[in-house]
Amino acid sequence: MDPYFIPFLNAKTLEDRYSKLSEFLHKTPILTSNSINSECGASLFFKCENFQKSGAFKMRGVSNAIYELLKMKNKPKGVIAHSSGNHGQALAWAAKHNNIECVVVMPRNASKFKKKAVLAAGGEIIECDSNISSRINTVKKFCETSGFIEIHPSNQPSVILGQGSAAWELMTECHKNNIKLSHVGIPIGGGGLAAGTGFAVSIWNKTHGTSIKVFAGEPEGANDAYRSFYSGKIEHNKDPKTVADGLRTELGNINFPIIQKTIDAIYLVSDTEILEGQLKLAERLKLIIETNCSPPFSAVYKKPQIFNNKTIGIILSGGNIDLRNNSWGS
Amino acid sequence: MDPYFIPFLNAKTLEDRYSKLSEFLHKTPILTSNSINSECGASLFFKCENFQKSGAFKMRGVSNAIYELLKMKNKPKGVIAHSSGNHGQALAWAAKHNNIECVVVMPRNASKFKKKAVLAAGGEIIECDSNISSRINTVKKFCETSGFIEIHPSNQPSVILGQGSAAWELMTECHKNNIKLSHVGIPIGGGGLAAGTGFAVSIWNKTHGTSIKVFAGEPEGANDAYRSFYSGKIEHNKDPKTVADGLRTELGNINFPIIQKTIDAIYLVSDTEILEGQLKLAERLKLIIETNCSPPFSAVYKKPQIFNNKTIGIILSGGNIDLRNNSWGS
Repeated sequence: MDPYFIPFLNAKTLEDRYSKLSEFLHKTPILTSNSINSECGASLFFKCENFQKSGAFKMRGVSNAIYELLKMKNKPKGVIAHSSGNHGQALAWAAKHNNIECVVVMPRNASKFKKKAVLAAGGEIIECDSNISSRINTVKKFCETSGFIEIHPSNQPSVILGQGSAAWELMTECHKNNIKLSHVGIPIGGGGLAAGTGFAVSIWNKTHGTSIKVFAGEPEGANDAYRSFYSGKIEHNKDPKTVADGLRTELGNINFPIIQKTIDAIYLVSDTEILEGQLKLAERLKLIIETNCSPPFSAVYKKPQIFNNKTIGIILSGGNIDLRNNSWGS
Repeated sequence: MDPYFIPFLNAKTLEDRYSKLSEFLHKTPILTSNSINSECGASLFFKCENFQKSGAFKMRGVSNAIYELLKMKNKPKGVIAHSSGNHGQALAWAAKHNNIECVVVMPRNASKFKKKAVLAAGGEIIECDSNISSRINTVKKFCETSGFIEIHPSNQPSVILGQGSAAWELMTECHKNNIKLSHVGIPIGGGGLAAGTGFAVSIWNKTHGTSIKVFAGEPEGANDAYRSFYSGKIEHNKDPKTVADGLRTELGNINFPIIQKTIDAIYLVSDTEILEGQLKLAERLKLIIETNCSPPFSAVYKKPQIFNNKTIGIILSGGNIDLRNNSWGS
């Protein structure tokens, strides 16, 4: 366990921090659908992080990271991240609202839609080549000369802790309404949401005497987390291919041990299942949600032997879609 | 004023009825968007009827119609409507949940998606030719031999009254939260939602000493309500053409006098404005909503001289879209 997490092993301290963060976040609603429940033979509670500020759960992680930065004696000149998606957008948004400068390193060929979103959120874009080493080096070089600090999307303790607040809110709200969750499901890509959720649920279970299980859904075409989880060491994606573009990333050395300790299972789903899941969620819940949201939902459909008659919270991770260029269900 | 409405001129009686109906309905959430507000220079409160049962506000009208039927001594054998859209789906749904049979008359060339939705809601489909007289005659003929009763989508007092419950809920919730609405906006097609909203708001204003105005948005390509409203007599659409397919219908002799008396203005919007409005609502609110939802929202964008600094409730009418065949923004 990274020393950062130790104070938060106490539920009161964790709750205090999440309560503090809630000042900067939307308390997102939890939606249900009778028709989905009857099809799945289970009770599903969808935590709608597509309604979160900046349109994704990523705002939770960056809010906690920036909260930590602002407590420092020597505040950094700015924050930087390489991201072609929601993390960059969330970081730019949170930085702007805290009067911090923000640079997002994006591949030259990233979509105009995503670049526009980062600029609209108040970030500055620095372009790099479309490969991971160019991304990393561009960030490193910039940090050396600028006094900026990197906020990693998934492998940074403060970010991981922040992401756990979605599950905490979900469990708190269900508890208030006497809904006894058996499972919480999340998608897994870089592992930040997975580790944060696992951590938060394990603290909740200890305090409340519950035994809520955490499962992740992962695309077959980017299955590094699945292989890592079952081999016990970090495995890599050679050429990740999946429609869930936010889940092509890989686990990191900080989140992996937490995932190993606090997640119960990872299920693989195909791109067809992901697209069908996205379409079903959109049609039934009337929500704009990304392909990245589907894997845990698709896993519930795929594994009735595990999920039948269960009470399942699912975190819908985000809703930032280029609708003009989106094909639903195919 | 149709005699049906007279008992409901008393706010207490109206509230009692809406409270009774709420047992059969979802209390839909009200959403806001900071970015939309700052772009419009106004405060907008979106009443999300896309989350209503069957995916549209139509459930409100049919719920009240069926509530009335069930009070009758000789209950009808079933209900029937001609509808190629949300009304048929809502009627089928409400009938099924009240153990009444339901027939929906649909043009032979109606989309498979819409037919599937009616069947899934529990309705039986009878096909007719794709023109209004074939629709009307098919319903008439069926009623003569079957003992079924027609529930009209917009020109029937009980349906109109039911539709008004969306605005009533919106005003009640805003009032509770000390939000002082200046306007309520709705789309106008057949006129049922417009008349119901106008009626409900006028009763609210009388009771609460407020002066909330009601405005409607209408597609330029199906502008019968606009012309009727300003000429003072029912005008017709010769060949209505608009992407807002639910708004191609015409006003009726029951809802028109109510609209004349209780609506403050009707604004026309182009198909381009409707599609841009739908895209903006989807991107910012993360909601699946129909083109039919946009006209009042697009009118707010179009008329800053009227809506600047105002506090506006907008009823988002529904979210039943064939996503596989939908092009956003064009």
